[in-house]
Amino acid sequence: MDSAALLDLLGNENRRRILRLLSRKPCYVTEISEYLGVSPKAVIDHLRKLDDAGLVESHVDDGRRKYFSIARNLRLEVNVSPYEFGTKSAYSASPNLDITSWRHVSLHVGRDAGGNDTASAGGADSSPDAPRADEADEGGNGADHDLGDLVSDIEQLERLENELSMAQRWVQGRLTQTLDRISAHFEGVDGRFYGDLIRGLAGGSETADALARRVDAPPDVVADALDGLAAHGVVERDGDRWRLVTDNA
Amino acid sequence: MDSAALLDLLGNENRRRILRLLSRKPCYVTEISEYLGVSPKAVIDHLRKLDDAGLVESHVDDGRRKYFSIARNLRLEVNVSPYEFGTKSAYSASPNLDITSWRHVSLHVGRDAGGNDTASAGGADSSPDAPRADEADEGGNGADHDLGDLVSDIEQLERLENELSMAQRWVQGRLTQTLDRISAHFEGVDGRFYGDLIRGLAGGSETADALARRVDAPPDVVADALDGLAAHGVVERDGDRWRLVTDNA
Repeated sequence: MDSAALLDLLGNENRRRILRLLSRKPCYVTEISEYLGVSPKAVIDHLRKLDDAGLVESHVDDGRRKYFSIARNLRLEVNVSPYEFGTKSAYSASPNLDITSWRHVSLHVGRDAGGNDTASAGGADSSPDAPRADEADEGGNGADHDLGDLVSDIEQLERLENELSMAQRWVQGRLTQTLDRISAHFEGVDGRFYGDLIRGLAGGSETADALARRVDAPPDVVADALDGLAAHGVVERDGDRWRLVTDNA
Repeated sequence: MDSAALLDLLGNENRRRILRLLSRKPCYVTEISEYLGVSPKAVIDHLRKLDDAGLVESHVDDGRRKYFSIARNLRLEVNVSPYEFGTKSAYSASPNLDITSWRHVSLHVGRDAGGNDTASAGGADSSPDAPRADEADEGGNGADHDLGDLVSDIEQLERLENELSMAQRWVQGRLTQTLDRISAHFEGVDGRFYGDLIRGLAGGSETADALARRVDAPPDVVADALDGLAAHGVVERDGDRWRLVTDNA
């Protein structure tokens, strides 16, 4: 989708609030209207624009009520720098499909023994002998950098940027796929909500109250759900905080 | 800077055009006004908003003319998915500074012999024995994925996402630094423009005309500049196309 059209859409606070709401659960117009404090007419107008752009979709349930939800994964990146105003947007392809086109991406960023920064990116077909940018970065400003080296650096950094973007789109697709599978585990008991809680704890332990604020749900509902997840052996209590039960903990 | 405020700013087509123009060269109000076909008053209003947000800055030259330019590196990422509406924005820290805080980032995405997808991310302090998510992805929908594995995947994917974002901010800072150095090489002969041309060729060979469209400059000016870069041994002609001279070519 066109980045400019996407920025026009996202430049509106109410549309952003609608997307945030729909990312938590599918909603019908009256619900959105009440949540936002905006007239149903205005909500319908926003939804139509989001629908036209392919960002949201709707389905009608048994009670003939029309529910809106976010249609698919989309990622937008904007770079602003003295040399660039760049925008990039892309749907994340299927996690399974995407990976075949760039079998191996490696990024190594470190500081070698001499205190120099090094960066290397191995492209799809260059994994064993990945080109390497060893930059003599003596920290002196105005040091006489070899022009050829600088040009070679630009080339590598451009490629690295593209590969990192692809990697991020892959991660996004994989996150959605994994959250789908977690939801499927809890069918009937609002699996999406359980998935949200798990994701909310992925960055580290949290108190039930902090988690409730994060997923924007009532604290007692979150407390109940955490007990449910604990019964599945997925989370555990750690004092007044909760954390995920994983091998990496 | 606040992502919402940034999206509000970027949601305006004329402000995006101003940023695109300033990323090519510092400009004064009348120049911008003529380029955009918008009144100086409106341009001043846009510039004030961009200035307030720290996106542009101005300096007055010898002739007392006020020039505007893009102030610094900034990156915005927006994730839209059925489970998320997330925005993230950050200034890219100094390329030298940033690297000390995450000495080693490695990403390996591939498809192992059994046809399974694997992803691993090595964090700052876990490089030798980076945790690894080996996901038995049999391609079956509704296959009974172990909940513990899925939770562990979420944790790893979240961390990978953060590390990739940091890596991209590092790349952005490094690109700007490298373009600064290239510009310094051509002091007096519009080094910024030479830097643009080099970056324009970083993705592969181009004809002079295609490159002229890309950097939005007159074809004869681009042709002259390419001859200049060729004299420096930085680019070379390949039939009717131009390409960078690097070890990786």
